[in-house]
Amino acid sequence: MERIILGIDPGTNIMGYGLIHQSGKTIRLITMGILKLGSYDNHALKLKKIFERTLGIIEEYKPDELAIEAPFFGKNVQSMLKLGRAQGVAMAAGLHKDIPIFEYSPKKIKQSITGNGNASKEQVAAMLNTLIEFDESPEYLDATDGLAAAVCHYFQGSSIKKNTSYSSWKNFLQDNPHRQKK
Amino acid sequence: MERIILGIDPGTNIMGYGLIHQSGKTIRLITMGILKLGSYDNHALKLKKIFERTLGIIEEYKPDELAIEAPFFGKNVQSMLKLGRAQGVAMAAGLHKDIPIFEYSPKKIKQSITGNGNASKEQVAAMLNTLIEFDESPEYLDATDGLAAAVCHYFQGSSIKKNTSYSSWKNFLQDNPHRQKK
Repeated sequence: MERIILGIDPGTNIMGYGLIHQSGKTIRLITMGILKLGSYDNHALKLKKIFERTLGIIEEYKPDELAIEAPFFGKNVQSMLKLGRAQGVAMAAGLHKDIPIFEYSPKKIKQSITGNGNASKEQVAAMLNTLIEFDESPEYLDATDGLAAAVCHYFQGSSIKKNTSYSSWKNFLQDNPHRQKK
Repeated sequence: MERIILGIDPGTNIMGYGLIHQSGKTIRLITMGILKLGSYDNHALKLKKIFERTLGIIEEYKPDELAIEAPFFGKNVQSMLKLGRAQGVAMAAGLHKDIPIFEYSPKKIKQSITGNGNASKEQVAAMLNTLIEFDESPEYLDATDGLAAAVCHYFQGSSIKKNTSYSSWKNFLQDNPHRQKK
């Protein structure tokens, strides 16, 4: 099995991303990085930047699958609305390019990589570094949240339930022709 | 002043939209419609449908501006996350096509059209029908939320503060070159 997985953690202050190449049971790092959004006080500009960067990464690296770190709970409705928008524009970039999207909760990602759903960011980064060697500078530490989503998706292997993914729309309609509506 | 305004109310169960053509102080209806999402129990499929339909409308009618009904408050974090995603993918379609996006709260839209921020959907629809004649079938009634956003935007006229809009990214950077970051 050969594939490129893009992992994204779309936050409203920083977006981390990581790309891995899987060949059979081997994975290697293609690139990882961050998009700093804190300097834009306008939420609108953040959304535009997230969309453009995600689309740009997809066009440059042509990932086969997109894994997103998606918290489902938050402190208040305002922050969740903003987070939902950030997730939405990142997802839209994937939807636009017909790339299957898979969502993982932060707990699931930590559990998958360290065996502990409550692991710290540093613990996740350290474990990632044993799997894929990379420069552990502060900037890259922020990017590890995106990379972690990609590696978590890799670990799911073929156990993914196709119908729970965003990719499954066509499959879903094939499996459920009676659900098809205009 | 000549422009086409697309108004959208991106909900998670139904998306209403309306397109108006403004020529000076005259507006006419181009089209209005709805996208039913209730039959998709998968939130992912809803997002895909919202993105595709919005992009399709933009490509077909080439609106100059996009007005979105955007509630900022909700009952719980879960519903706000979903709503944020729905708004995000609709906005992404506009961002992708470089169309200026303007947000209005439901209260602002009702206030703008009926003079009463707490007006009912029926009252808004009735007032819209005195401004722009349309078939008042139940299906179109659902579409009036989108149409109302477009008409609300028309009413704002030239009083729009450019820097509060999504369109303003380029303007914003021109006005604030020191804010530009990679």
